[in-house]
Amino acid sequence: MPYQDIQQAAYEANMQLPKLGLVLFTFGNVSAADRQQGVFAIKPSGVPYDELTPEKMVIVDFEGKTVQGNLRPSSDTLTHAVLYKHWENIGGIVHTHSTYATAWSQTLRDIPVYGTTHADHLTADIPCAPPMDDAMIKGNYEYETGFQIMNALRDKGLRYEEVEMILVGNHAPFTWGKTASKAVYNSAVLEAVAQMAYLTEQIYSDCSRLKASLIQKHYQRKHGDGAYYGQD
Amino acid sequence: MPYQDIQQAAYEANMQLPKLGLVLFTFGNVSAADRQQGVFAIKPSGVPYDELTPEKMVIVDFEGKTVQGNLRPSSDTLTHAVLYKHWENIGGIVHTHSTYATAWSQTLRDIPVYGTTHADHLTADIPCAPPMDDAMIKGNYEYETGFQIMNALRDKGLRYEEVEMILVGNHAPFTWGKTASKAVYNSAVLEAVAQMAYLTEQIYSDCSRLKASLIQKHYQRKHGDGAYYGQD
Amino acid sequence: MPYQDIQQAAYEANMQLPKLGLVLFTFGNVSAADRQQGVFAIKPSGVPYDELTPEKMVIVDFEGKTVQGNLRPSSDTLTHAVLYKHWENIGGIVHTHSTYATAWSQTLRDIPVYGTTHADHLTADIPCAPPMDDAMIKGNYEYETGFQIMNALRDKGLRYEEVEMILVGNHAPFTWGKTASKAVYNSAVLEAVAQMAYLTEQIYSDCSRLKASLIQKHYQRKHGDGAYYGQD
Amino acid sequence: MPYQDIQQAAYEANMQLPKLGLVLFTFGNVSAADRQQGVFAIKPSGVPYDELTPEKMVIVDFEGKTVQGNLRPSSDTLTHAVLYKHWENIGGIVHTHSTYATAWSQTLRDIPVYGTTHADHLTADIPCAPPMDDAMIKGNYEYETGFQIMNALRDKGLRYEEVEMILVGNHAPFTWGKTASKAVYNSAVLEAVAQMAYLTEQIYSDCSRLKASLIQKHYQRKHGDGAYYGQD
Repeated sequence: MPYQDIQQAAYEANMQLPKLGLVLFTFGNVSAADRQQGVFAIKPSGVPYDELTPEKMVIVDFEGKTVQGNLRPSSDTLTHAVLYKHWENIGGIVHTHSTYATAWSQTLRDIPVYGTTHADHLTADIPCAPPMDDAMIKGNYEYETGFQIMNALRDKGLRYEEVEMILVGNHAPFTWGKTASKAVYNSAVLEAVAQMAYLTEQIYSDCSRLKASLIQKHYQRKHGDGAYYGQD
Repeated sequence: MPYQDIQQAAYEANMQLPKLGLVLFTFGNVSAADRQQGVFAIKPSGVPYDELTPEKMVIVDFEGKTVQGNLRPSSDTLTHAVLYKHWENIGGIVHTHSTYATAWSQTLRDIPVYGTTHADHLTADIPCAPPMDDAMIKGNYEYETGFQIMNALRDKGLRYEEVEMILVGNHAPFTWGKTASKAVYNSAVLEAVAQMAYLTEQIYSDCSRLKASLIQKHYQRKHGDGAYYGQD
Repeated sequence: MPYQDIQQAAYEANMQLPKLGLVLFTFGNVSAADRQQGVFAIKPSGVPYDELTPEKMVIVDFEGKTVQGNLRPSSDTLTHAVLYKHWENIGGIVHTHSTYATAWSQTLRDIPVYGTTHADHLTADIPCAPPMDDAMIKGNYEYETGFQIMNALRDKGLRYEEVEMILVGNHAPFTWGKTASKAVYNSAVLEAVAQMAYLTEQIYSDCSRLKASLIQKHYQRKHGDGAYYGQD
Repeated sequence: MPYQDIQQAAYEANMQLPKLGLVLFTFGNVSAADRQQGVFAIKPSGVPYDELTPEKMVIVDFEGKTVQGNLRPSSDTLTHAVLYKHWENIGGIVHTHSTYATAWSQTLRDIPVYGTTHADHLTADIPCAPPMDDAMIKGNYEYETGFQIMNALRDKGLRYEEVEMILVGNHAPFTWGKTASKAVYNSAVLEAVAQMAYLTEQIYSDCSRLKASLIQKHYQRKHGDGAYYGQD
């Protein structure tokens, strides 16, 4: 059973989505990668969360080909495959249609960094990738979505190792991380930050971004060389 | 017990409404039709959800006449009857006063298609039927509501097989589908889409509809000839 | 044990408030009246809901004097007493600081009748009583609050038998009804209607009230002579 | 086991945060002080709430030095230490990133006193401390945060014994009280008041503060010499 570990990890991470209030019905999926074997385990398409088991997680390689499993993998599988293939340091990917992050995606706006909750996790505005050209949409849509995500980060000068979340314009968020569990964590953080940024602008329409010193302080105390948050 | 199947289906579908957060008290009802026998099972009027049983579901024909049951059927029964009579391909209908969909109904606005969560389910704006003329309101109100729904779809050039949801102006939403369970699913989708569209306009007041290529891509990958979402 | 029935009714109605999400901590109270004996049972002041028992409900007469009980009654007791004394047809009163109804109270605005969810319960805008004169506030505050509520209804030409809810300006809502249970129902309806009206104005800032024919239709089908909602 | 009481108090108070919906993941911390021994017990940094035990609470003195415990204390420990050292009458402190209070913090606005829910707890607007100078941020950040909080109260002429809550600009709220449990209560009150104030301004953009007589009446009936709320 060479894929048991990533099936278990993908299963547990998928089951976190409804618990964290990030999905309605089957509107989301998580994958977990095994870089040694060059594959990832991903949720089967359209299967309700309460019918999932670890064994139902489909094993797919980084070209998007199913390696093991009788069920059809998530319709977003090719997006996952592209990101795993090109971003060597990630081990998990999440896609949801969580309410506030999706609303921001629908506006095509980046989420401005308004506070330390945001800066605890990344120093940049949360980027929104523009919608794709019609040719890409009509072509290999989910495959192109992966490149659209990578290009949007590159165009903004962002590194995927720091910025572990993105909005896809008119669509919804994707997040990633070293593990599937960390990617789910990022989806919940994104949703909370998206809600707070929305409320901030409602309460005061002319508010400013957090200043650079405060962004750096909060990011570095969690992620810098001298980080002192947590027990590690 | 010729109606046992639709009573069970209507009961289970009704019980989903409070679980999905779509109703307060008794502000909603679901019916399930048996086209062979020309009847549907519907929630009794004003009975709390936690007192429902399959046996309490009232059996009504497509003219709105009660065929079996001691309880008075939902006050919206005639609306259900009209829709079943004229729309041959539906097997379930739901009416709720869910928060966001009802708020949109109260504005008399259609819900614009702002993202793929919407386009995954229908390609058009979610229509809002205008309020009826006073004569229709004072007349056979619930019966006329059925025609108001059908006319609103027709006037906008929409097919009920694709657009399985509508807002009734100043009132609240109705949804339908091949089964009662699918109609409840549609009510939950409508509520989520209504909330996201509201937030989208709050975050950016000048946002645009999703472009046609993206609408078609998302709708077709779930519903087109070459659909590849789900396991069917 | 002459007060056992109203103690039980007040207890059960109070316990509904946290279940319906209408109170934080002890920010609310319910009373239940026995008109034969000229008394009501009311929540003791500041006691957490999970420490309540039927026996802890304090028995108070319509002048506001404690008749039975070792605990201090709700600080709002005199408001309840005034309303019971002057409104002969009510048997229960509720006060909460529920989120949306309280926000409306803080604006001093009436809640416009924007839809049938509202008209199913009353035909008027939900009134907001203006804040009291300073002399009344510094005087017998809770007693005067009762008169402020009665005067606001009278000034707007409303009958307490139909309009079973009010906002007290800068403060929070009160509701009432034939029973304590009905008064709690009204508090939940008010909160839902308040949220929907808020959202309605956010989605479309220039929306109109429901037209008279639709208001009357919905109110009468639940409350008129030929009412056909429910099983009674 | 000289610190058992405050460890238990800090543990129980920390566990209230997720129950009250005030924290996501580990975004919050509570401490409980023992003034006799000159120490406080505080949540260990980054440990999930469901892995907490009373024994894991770290004991720290009022200079911020760890006295007992193998885990690293909350990264905000120095802020707690500064406040305990200078404010002799407090026994508990809470920091959260609760949604509405944090959104207000991000706007740098004080929360205006719009209603009695607010005035039941304090008579002033809830203050927002301005962000610190860059030198303070780059220096001993958490230590300086304590002084920033104290200075903001002093500059506005507020007493910490009455105003038991503050927003830290671009960051998030801190609350305190005679006990850790009371400080948690204050965090929940702040979040509710922050939500109501936000909604109030959305419903009516030109609303006024509560008038002085009503502020005083509500504050004094709970906190004044002749207070008559509660059972004490």
